[in-house]
Amino acid sequence: MESKKQILVDMDGVLADVYAQFINYEYKNTGTLMRIEDMDGKPEFSFPSFRRYVMTPGFFRTAPLISGCVEGLRFLNEHCRVLIVSSATEFPQSLPEKQAWLNEHFPFITWQQMIFCGSKNSIQGDVMIDDHPKNLCHFPGVRIMFPQPHNSRSEVENSIRVSGWKEIMSSDWINSL
Amino acid sequence: MESKKQILVDMDGVLADVYAQFINYEYKNTGTLMRIEDMDGKPEFSFPSFRRYVMTPGFFRTAPLISGCVEGLRFLNEHCRVLIVSSATEFPQSLPEKQAWLNEHFPFITWQQMIFCGSKNSIQGDVMIDDHPKNLCHFPGVRIMFPQPHNSRSEVENSIRVSGWKEIMSSDWINSL
Repeated sequence: MESKKQILVDMDGVLADVYAQFINYEYKNTGTLMRIEDMDGKPEFSFPSFRRYVMTPGFFRTAPLISGCVEGLRFLNEHCRVLIVSSATEFPQSLPEKQAWLNEHFPFITWQQMIFCGSKNSIQGDVMIDDHPKNLCHFPGVRIMFPQPHNSRSEVENSIRVSGWKEIMSSDWINSL
Repeated sequence: MESKKQILVDMDGVLADVYAQFINYEYKNTGTLMRIEDMDGKPEFSFPSFRRYVMTPGFFRTAPLISGCVEGLRFLNEHCRVLIVSSATEFPQSLPEKQAWLNEHFPFITWQQMIFCGSKNSIQGDVMIDDHPKNLCHFPGVRIMFPQPHNSRSEVENSIRVSGWKEIMSSDWINSL
């Protein structure tokens, strides 16, 4: 029997809905209701207050879940060796918040399966699920692009663009790995 | 010109003197002055209060430095690509403490060079400097065993046991990599 594939799963933009959280924070702070459509094709950090919000205590701890991610990650965790790999050291306050958030929503993921880093270039795996071209483009394995407004116009060589967690959970997809 | 080697440097037991910190905490908490000689060959967690202390806020933030580690890490950082790789997610409160400690003592190490994880098995590098046989034994590159009481009687296949940072800084050693 072939050994299980190792899948690197990103947090922000794959599990945590940081765009929805940004819209929440912007509305609470300024009264402006931003529309996700208006963010299409623009980098997250092109919104001036985004950087301020991600450095605010609570931003990552209270982020909403991306649709289907709990069932999806449970499915992957049963079929593969899952590692959660999150860029976090740029915002040190996010470190314990991210771990507490994972513990709350994904109790089946253990501390042994978590990696908080600055760069993902040195993390080994067979598959990477990520929304950031800068992470996928260095990855030597199967590159899965998770859809987010900032990457809607991005292309990464040899990457597979999925529509969301429902597609990731389809057995055809997982069997093709 | 050959590209720089990537060196994975452990924190606890290589940069941070967790034994000295344990002795400090034990003395402050119980009045007992433990001797480093009495710890020889025993795992860190064989001391009942060790686990309690490492879960106490401040333990990692205020850990003393291992002799020569600042100069040693600066030297490595000039000659190699350094990644600090620390097992930290078992004790979530240690995450921001460890990053703040690194920032204080090693301002030349950037957030891009930090990895906080549960297991080190999936982190790529050419050289690993670590005091734990459980980390070194899975590493496919050059294995450098840093001396600590718990590993004094441990052998790891193909590992090179150094005496400390002074030896790591010797140009003979670094040139032999």
